Amino acid sequence: MNDLSPIVTPTVTTGPLPASRKIYLAGTAYADIRVPLREIAVHPTAGEPPVVVYDASGPYTDDAVAIDIAKGLPRPREVWALSRGDVEAYDGRTVRPEDNGNLPAAKLTPAFPVAHRPLRAKPGRGVTQLAYAKAGIVTPEMEFVAIRENLGRQALQAAAARDGEPFEAAIPDVITAEWVREEIASGRAIIPANINHPELEPMAIGRNFLTKINANIGNSAVTSSMAEEVDKMVWAIRWGADTVMDLSTGRNIHNIRDWIIRNAPVPIGTVPIYQALEKVDGIAENLTWEVFRDTLIEQAEQGVDYFTIHAGVRLSYIPLTVERVTGIVSRGGSIMAKWCLHHHKESFLYEHFNEICDICRAYDVSFSLGDGLRPGSIADGNDRAQFAELETLGELTKIARAKDCQVMIEGPGHVPMHKIKVNVEKQQKLCGDAPFYTLGPLVTDIAPGYDHITSGIGAAMIGWFGTAMLCYVTPKEHLGLPDRDDVKVGVITYKIAAHAADLAKGHPAAQLRDDALSRARFEFRWEDQFNLSLDPETARLYHDETLPKEAHKVAHFCSMCGPKFCSMRISHDIRSEAQKEGMEAMAAKYRDGGDLYLPAEVAAENAEPAE
Amino acid sequence: MNDLSPIVTPTVTTGPLPASRKIYLAGTAYADIRVPLREIAVHPTAGEPPVVVYDASGPYTDDAVAIDIAKGLPRPREVWALSRGDVEAYDGRTVRPEDNGNLPAAKLTPAFPVAHRPLRAKPGRGVTQLAYAKAGIVTPEMEFVAIRENLGRQALQAAAARDGEPFEAAIPDVITAEWVREEIASGRAIIPANINHPELEPMAIGRNFLTKINANIGNSAVTSSMAEEVDKMVWAIRWGADTVMDLSTGRNIHNIRDWIIRNAPVPIGTVPIYQALEKVDGIAENLTWEVFRDTLIEQAEQGVDYFTIHAGVRLSYIPLTVERVTGIVSRGGSIMAKWCLHHHKESFLYEHFNEICDICRAYDVSFSLGDGLRPGSIADGNDRAQFAELETLGELTKIARAKDCQVMIEGPGHVPMHKIKVNVEKQQKLCGDAPFYTLGPLVTDIAPGYDHITSGIGAAMIGWFGTAMLCYVTPKEHLGLPDRDDVKVGVITYKIAAHAADLAKGHPAAQLRDDALSRARFEFRWEDQFNLSLDPETARLYHDETLPKEAHKVAHFCSMCGPKFCSMRISHDIRSEAQKEGMEAMAAKYRDGGDLYLPAEVAAENAEPAE
Repeated sequence: MNDLSPIVTPTVTTGPLPASRKIYLAGTAYADIRVPLREIAVHPTAGEPPVVVYDASGPYTDDAVAIDIAKGLPRPREVWALSRGDVEAYDGRTVRPEDNGNLPAAKLTPAFPVAHRPLRAKPGRGVTQLAYAKAGIVTPEMEFVAIRENLGRQALQAAAARDGEPFEAAIPDVITAEWVREEIASGRAIIPANINHPELEPMAIGRNFLTKINANIGNSAVTSSMAEEVDKMVWAIRWGADTVMDLSTGRNIHNIRDWIIRNAPVPIGTVPIYQALEKVDGIAENLTWEVFRDTLIEQAEQGVDYFTIHAGVRLSYIPLTVERVTGIVSRGGSIMAKWCLHHHKESFLYEHFNEICDICRAYDVSFSLGDGLRPGSIADGNDRAQFAELETLGELTKIARAKDCQVMIEGPGHVPMHKIKVNVEKQQKLCGDAPFYTLGPLVTDIAPGYDHITSGIGAAMIGWFGTAMLCYVTPKEHLGLPDRDDVKVGVITYKIAAHAADLAKGHPAAQLRDDALSRARFEFRWEDQFNLSLDPETARLYHDETLPKEAHKVAHFCSMCGPKFCSMRISHDIRSEAQKEGMEAMAAKYRDGGDLYLPAEVAAENAEPAE
Repeated sequence: MNDLSPIVTPTVTTGPLPASRKIYLAGTAYADIRVPLREIAVHPTAGEPPVVVYDASGPYTDDAVAIDIAKGLPRPREVWALSRGDVEAYDGRTVRPEDNGNLPAAKLTPAFPVAHRPLRAKPGRGVTQLAYAKAGIVTPEMEFVAIRENLGRQALQAAAARDGEPFEAAIPDVITAEWVREEIASGRAIIPANINHPELEPMAIGRNFLTKINANIGNSAVTSSMAEEVDKMVWAIRWGADTVMDLSTGRNIHNIRDWIIRNAPVPIGTVPIYQALEKVDGIAENLTWEVFRDTLIEQAEQGVDYFTIHAGVRLSYIPLTVERVTGIVSRGGSIMAKWCLHHHKESFLYEHFNEICDICRAYDVSFSLGDGLRPGSIADGNDRAQFAELETLGELTKIARAKDCQVMIEGPGHVPMHKIKVNVEKQQKLCGDAPFYTLGPLVTDIAPGYDHITSGIGAAMIGWFGTAMLCYVTPKEHLGLPDRDDVKVGVITYKIAAHAADLAKGHPAAQLRDDALSRARFEFRWEDQFNLSLDPETARLYHDETLPKEAHKVAHFCSMCGPKFCSMRISHDIRSEAQKEGMEAMAAKYRDGGDLYLPAEVAAENAEPAE
């Protein structure tokens, strides 16, 4: 643990990515909303428009915005919440010493310098996006999401037929705010957006939207500080994290979270039981509903957008884990299991689920119903414990929705490839098509140090099959806490998985960026190739390791093959010849059904084939 | 390019991996064969036998073998070939200046210090593994492969039912040498094993065997040297590469290859057109059958085990590539396309395919029929050009098999996830179930710098669907030549993909290692967890970055959660309680069909669910 003097303010990375600028689109129903997108310029020789991409990075990548971490981000959603007339500001809960681990002043992370009075629903009112959607109200959040997701689809109106296998997904050609409302009302999507997190740029999680990714950060009793965690949050969204979970389990939890939320343009999720456990000195059996309830309110007032709640860990399921290879590997799940066993009763999360819903409803905190019994090894994948809990999560989903609460469902974990698809099918069926939010899954256990890759394989597949958000795994999984570099590698790996899923589902605009990059590659526009990639810095670095000279960035070859063996260069020669020789006409002939396949004459010269 | 003095001998990494020792199993029919396996010890507290794994690393990881790169490896297969009575030694082709790029002596990589007279089939004899298999002969190579692949299956005799989705694969419970012979005879598998590569430890490529991986090395006109390439070869097999392709395209090609083959215990593949092109100063249209034929014999005498031959690039297919986003991206494919167009005729590879077969038959060089028209972007995936060529590869497979030549088929490339499976299905159908050997495929184009990951996703999937060997992609793909670190990352990523495929196919022994590692993880045997992983060094390094002390390697927690939040520790507590409380009995009751699911009482208290 680092000691922090009260004057330490985190340093974060700002400024646009290479060749990129931030653009903002205004709303129609809500003219004041400004939806951020990122425009990547290409070289004039391309004769192509800039490529517009989804942008989760927030104001940090806008040079026009002055960033002051000690003040926090602008709060555009404050007026949206107030204008609805169904919320009230009040004097929130007083911060107590145990919220920060009873630390002496010298070791305490300073409180966030700016205090805001929290909002909550007026008595009897539901202020969730689901409540509005059910009531037929299109909120600014919904229009914001529609514009954000609609990205690029207009440009495709004249393009080819859709190409993909969407399974149960139904992705529209163009997204309207009303369509977003319908998706929210049906429960197939959520917009995690606490009314006390007005810094948020709204986003949606649902199988008919772009596949999202989450990055986990947070200190532990063993390591890291507030400044590092704020930096990691900004760093994670710079590379594309759509939401961030603060999984802090050490000291200073309350204050670190305040610094994170006040500077977060993305939804922040937590696992409240972690902080509750700190309040009872780490003794699981000493947890009570009162301590937990107090923690939920504390975090709801701060602006946490979604809570992981392990209410599906029922007493009767715990024996099902005893013969597992790796028992219970969810921290929250194991804490609740221990509590249940010690007291020999159902957990207070399950027993008080209605009251938890009431709190979530008053602040619009979304549920992320935790999979406390997820498998921790492929041997345990898809076992009875896992699916028994999933059945309970389905029941709880119904209860939460009846209370107007938004719900997503967490999923595994460690699952070999042939068992992945059934996870999505069962989850969709049991949980009324609530968005699925999975960790990986890892498709093998034998590669610690590379679990971003073992899990990235499973993530791409489960995303394709219908998972709405993929929780990243970093190279440090199972071994240590991720540092800044690990966070970046984890985020990029999961952007790959999510994008691969969107392509395979046949998302109408996903391939635009692939095609732009491929054209740049084919035309030796090296700078464009770097700039259009998920990680321009690394692409450039790797290129320059072999061919460092600036001249080589306009070279019509690269280091892999050198000039003589460059297939792309030869392809260009072929294309030129084709023009000379009228081969376009030849190609057209073949396309029109000419007798393309000419049996190999040589075949006739030979004896009978082997089989 | 580096200048090399004649005395430079490559330095390579030797010695066993952590906690590992080499064991050798003897044959039954052939008592002199020594099949290497790697035994990984676990801590005595585990009460478990060592874990035995497949081992492609050769004598380099055996402390009992003295390595002398300038002498080359032992040549156990020499006597096998000679004892069959169907080969003859002869004075091979004389090395010519153009074989090494006409370099002056000062720039010439020295010739390998030890010369061997090459072997070839006596007139009229076929000396391929396929010829023997068809004749009902079980060769030492086949028994070697059977013992090697059989690994661990005996231990599973009493284990649970097979778990997996093998699609068209039919993986036996136990592998016999006769079964290997049948697989070879049917053409579903190959053993690439040139009679002039007696240093080889035989291995099989086929969908009913363990999924294999290939690593590419080789210099280019732009960079690298013999010493680096030999080092990379040894490094690649240390981490698990099953075969290595030498894709050198620069100078010194002949001599570099000699150094590599004489020190390679794995099959070495090449693309002979690369060297042929060097011999005509890089001018594709100057290539002739005579130059190419001479190159095949040169390489066959050296001991190359498989040739990539792009004989499927037919003149009539070239127009199909003109409107592609990325044209022709195979180097060999583009060279042949250029030749065909220039001369307006079918390629000499296609026209002389019979004669190529005759050469391969005389040395047992396997075919890797190249996909010269593979897609270079997802936009071009599964297009007409790609599949037209595949049809021709199917015709050529029949011709080659009729000549007793072993054949595998190369595949893409860049393919989005939803289009991967059909590649395997078409290949199996069109090519008579010849082993499929694919590059990736990459499932998106937008992540240069991370294409080991974009392709690892596709590789795991296509391996599951039935691809027999996966050609690795390194982080430098599209950007630069891989260095030693890149080679390792590429190999480990592809070992993950291949192993994930074996698990999903339900390979009877694949999960043994996962389970052993998971048990080590659950029991806090950190050292075992490192040692059982694909890359023990990296796993240990990542752990120590957060918790460096030796004491922490016996700690019953880790840096991610610290002691209080350790789910595995809590799971152990639960297991202890379970023993106290007789919960095993409870678990048994549930397993026996007790009424597991108790409807949530809280549900009854609520209004109707949302939908």
